Amino acid sequence: MDAENKLQNEGQSLEAQVKAFFDSAPPLNSSHEITQKLNQFIQRNSSSSARRIVCVTSGGTTAPLEQRCVRYVDNFSSGHRGATSTEYFLKAGYAVIFLYRRGSFQPFCRSLPEDPLLECFEPTNDLNIQVRKDYSEAVKSAIVDYHTAVAGGHLLKLPFGTIFEYLQMLQIIGISMRCIGQRAMFYLAAAVSDYYVPWKDMLETDSSILLKKANAALEKYKMHAVVANELSTRKEQVVVTTGVDNITVLRDNSEPANDVEKPLIKLLSERHATYIEDSGR
Amino acid sequence: MDAENKLQNEGQSLEAQVKAFFDSAPPLNSSHEITQKLNQFIQRNSSSSARRIVCVTSGGTTAPLEQRCVRYVDNFSSGHRGATSTEYFLKAGYAVIFLYRRGSFQPFCRSLPEDPLLECFEPTNDLNIQVRKDYSEAVKSAIVDYHTAVAGGHLLKLPFGTIFEYLQMLQIIGISMRCIGQRAMFYLAAAVSDYYVPWKDMLETDSSILLKKANAALEKYKMHAVVANELSTRKEQVVVTTGVDNITVLRDNSEPANDVEKPLIKLLSERHATYIEDSGR
Repeated sequence: MDAENKLQNEGQSLEAQVKAFFDSAPPLNSSHEITQKLNQFIQRNSSSSARRIVCVTSGGTTAPLEQRCVRYVDNFSSGHRGATSTEYFLKAGYAVIFLYRRGSFQPFCRSLPEDPLLECFEPTNDLNIQVRKDYSEAVKSAIVDYHTAVAGGHLLKLPFGTIFEYLQMLQIIGISMRCIGQRAMFYLAAAVSDYYVPWKDMLETDSSILLKKANAALEKYKMHAVVANELSTRKEQVVVTTGVDNITVLRDNSEPANDVEKPLIKLLSERHATYIEDSGR
Repeated sequence: MDAENKLQNEGQSLEAQVKAFFDSAPPLNSSHEITQKLNQFIQRNSSSSARRIVCVTSGGTTAPLEQRCVRYVDNFSSGHRGATSTEYFLKAGYAVIFLYRRGSFQPFCRSLPEDPLLECFEPTNDLNIQVRKDYSEAVKSAIVDYHTAVAGGHLLKLPFGTIFEYLQMLQIIGISMRCIGQRAMFYLAAAVSDYYVPWKDMLETDSSILLKKANAALEKYKMHAVVANELSTRKEQVVVTTGVDNITVLRDNSEPANDVEKPLIKLLSERHATYIEDSGR
């Protein structure tokens, strides 16, 4: 990574580094809504009681390598420390602003498997659903404890992904918390990337070379077909390249909730059947 | 990234590149179990019927930058294409081996929110739980359809994280699928990293500099305390550095299911109370 882009550039003052970071960052989505939620949360926890408020940050941050980001450098963290600490801060009487990486561990869910919906529930004989016996206590307390904290107004969850979102949201939280003075605490458990690529320097991918690349892959890896798509239209349209023909497959928009995968898998399944038949001759 | 480590090195034959990759890869965990599961799955779908079998790969792959990996380059993909295609392959009568990135989209769960357990369920008045009305159909069909596919022996899910795990598992699947000939299909929807850092070249972090770094951070960022931990013992022990003292906080192992966060948050909460009190004088 380019030394110029390091967050901690030895040649610059800390203030200059901070300014350079925020100047280079892409605009944060819905910053107005976030500020509103924060102000309501802080006011609610200040009006009736002078509750202490902690901002817990949790999980890894990503440094994108492209503007329409596919590749990024991730500073991995499961978020276990942040989620667990949030539970204990709530028990200790704090209100918690939980600034977490999307997909990281959530408070009250630590003892559950990774995919709790599919792993903790099972169908009954009458095609209803029930919690598996092994997980009944853990699932119930996760849902009850979580909703109690949220409904009680003591837990505000704010998700982030990139280093840009993380630091911009942390700045907003810092400004919103000013009014409560020493009652505020920042407990920064997120794994923060120590560099970033300035937004304006990121290269975009060229969509015009899509079919050329698909055909090159077909030949190089000796495949029967390549399904090519552009990032922006990937849910509406794909092109199946076989070396002999290019078939454009479109989502059927005449019915609601249709997927482009429906005609795509139909096409591939039919081609596969023909291939099996031809091989057997 | 070093051009030497590119998967597609122009100077080498494809075979030599493949060999270099597998030679450099760290050993795959539980490869024996994976092979067993695969063989059972393939046999089950071949004995009574000659069902076609597709291996669907899904989600992004990571290229680790360290052996005990914290930082990695990720080739992001939500896994939507792979999960959706899996549903349609099952409907088309295929058995599906779903090789997916941990945390990516799962078949039958597309219409649910990101965190279905906490978002789709709510506590009842008697502190039991129920599905929220808006999600009742989506949740029920996700669980029923998923379990029907798994219980019917038509869906085998295998998770991966790194590019090493992905390609090693794909190789095992390829070998296991040989016996079914043309009935096999590979539908490779995963976003595969086009480079990697050879395992032996990765640098390890030095744990001896932990407290030195913690103290430097304390000073540079003007914080009141830094909680320092080593990766391997982070759930048992942390050191709280305040510039005045270093307090080692240990998990209480006398009770089961205890967390190091319990005494840690107690300590921080007490210090915070003292700080508020002192500020008010």
